[in-house]
Amino acid sequence: MLDLCLLGTGGMMPLPNRWLTSLLCKYNGSSVLIDCGEGTQIAIREKGLTFKPIDVICITHFHGDHISGLPGVLLAMANSERTEPLIIIGPRGVQRVVGHLRIVAPELPFEIRYLEITGDGAHFEMYGYSIDAFRLDHGMPCYGYTISVKRAGKFDVKAAEENNIPLKFWNRLQKGETVKEGGRTFTPDMVLGPERKGLKVTYATDSRPVKSISENAKNADLFICEGMYGEKSDVNNAVRYKHMTFEEAGTLAKEADAKELWLTHYSPALMRPDMYEADVQKIFPNAHVCRDGRDKTLYFEED
Amino acid sequence: MLDLCLLGTGGMMPLPNRWLTSLLCKYNGSSVLIDCGEGTQIAIREKGLTFKPIDVICITHFHGDHISGLPGVLLAMANSERTEPLIIIGPRGVQRVVGHLRIVAPELPFEIRYLEITGDGAHFEMYGYSIDAFRLDHGMPCYGYTISVKRAGKFDVKAAEENNIPLKFWNRLQKGETVKEGGRTFTPDMVLGPERKGLKVTYATDSRPVKSISENAKNADLFICEGMYGEKSDVNNAVRYKHMTFEEAGTLAKEADAKELWLTHYSPALMRPDMYEADVQKIFPNAHVCRDGRDKTLYFEED
Repeated sequence: MLDLCLLGTGGMMPLPNRWLTSLLCKYNGSSVLIDCGEGTQIAIREKGLTFKPIDVICITHFHGDHISGLPGVLLAMANSERTEPLIIIGPRGVQRVVGHLRIVAPELPFEIRYLEITGDGAHFEMYGYSIDAFRLDHGMPCYGYTISVKRAGKFDVKAAEENNIPLKFWNRLQKGETVKEGGRTFTPDMVLGPERKGLKVTYATDSRPVKSISENAKNADLFICEGMYGEKSDVNNAVRYKHMTFEEAGTLAKEADAKELWLTHYSPALMRPDMYEADVQKIFPNAHVCRDGRDKTLYFEED
Repeated sequence: MLDLCLLGTGGMMPLPNRWLTSLLCKYNGSSVLIDCGEGTQIAIREKGLTFKPIDVICITHFHGDHISGLPGVLLAMANSERTEPLIIIGPRGVQRVVGHLRIVAPELPFEIRYLEITGDGAHFEMYGYSIDAFRLDHGMPCYGYTISVKRAGKFDVKAAEENNIPLKFWNRLQKGETVKEGGRTFTPDMVLGPERKGLKVTYATDSRPVKSISENAKNADLFICEGMYGEKSDVNNAVRYKHMTFEEAGTLAKEADAKELWLTHYSPALMRPDMYEADVQKIFPNAHVCRDGRDKTLYFEED
């Protein structure tokens, strides 16, 4: 299962009672944080979540509302006595930008490894996650992220027995390891059925509604998308400032055939985003205008 | 009158329901902000205060909990359409540190002027404020600040008439201007009585309790002092980490003969600082263990 928490739903600036947009994913003891604006460390504490298991931080782009809170989160991780390396993924230049921000957090008890994305995107495999970064259309280089968890095929006891595989190796083969013994090689495909449907969440902010988003969110279990403007008539501002209206986000969710849409990253001027939920549901019925701290656990399908 | 608001009372890290320690002073349409940790911009909004009149920001030192929120406040000031220059006062290196943090706020519609303090302290006069920075004893160069508002002498109508000063100049002379007309020079001392008692607030965090604090807080109308630890027995930690216990702060207030003491900058581990209020009041009766957003207006004495 994959636990998700949308820590905040604000865009541009943090407000009383509205943290900036950020997503925390938890799977198998490892957490991935996407975006880290001012106050994210407080939002994490408010939800009772922990800093130590954060193995990866993905940054969409270098506007303050998506990265200013990073020094605070790094210091909080240091206070949690983390010593394992941390991976930071972001657009080209992320090491330089984080380096500047670390003027107030120069000493940390863990190493930071940087993965810089260029061009249209990148694919990473780490801590049981598949992470796909894809290019968005904002005022500066900006990437959305799809976080997937794969699920191996079902263990086929009959096949294991027919192949005379010793019982002691079954567990390792199920985990995907190849095992050698006495001149024989046992591979996972000897005992595992076809790969089963995994879990997929796609996070896209800040951007105009471009095709890469619906392509990357294709069949996602959850699609989290920016909606800077609730009013349809604000589309001119959305074009000008490279953001989206709720309805544009809803159309992307429909094109992607996602299971569920969560809207986030509201303009500070949008005091009652929930007022526009019905409008977007006309386009994509399973759309939710989220509030801070919304969480959901995605489960693997029953066999 | 001088309006004061203690925006937050936390130390080290912001917590849900406890912003980091920061003070906003308002006088005659001009605001001075002291310290600016992560979340200060939200605390300012929560109190319904405004960004545009902030003419001066004083930074005590470069630990993250005192400066990380600066980019957010600068962006909020930009959004308030401020174009007048901003003065930032801080220890030597403040321009370099703020320069690094501004990687996420590179373009602002106003100029920033830096005043760097070295040695034991510095004195500044600006926007009707007298600002005295004085050296504290922390793990890095750190300064406390005394903010004073002077009050001119009472206008002496009889003296103005005896000196044959035209009525049209009275207002300017009262404001401290010197006026020349037809070969004659009129000076404020011709019409003003002796300077009257002004208003004074002293802010000291982070530090061990050193003599410069009580000297600088001498007879202050309000003395705002760090109290990292409520328990008297935590004095060893206070010595080790260069902070104070509540009782040490109370002793400073007593030595300074201040009118009132506000405690702030509590350790994140100190969940109920109010439990120690009675202890510090035994040393200094008019001591208050503050909560976020405490405000007070200091008035000039009646004549």
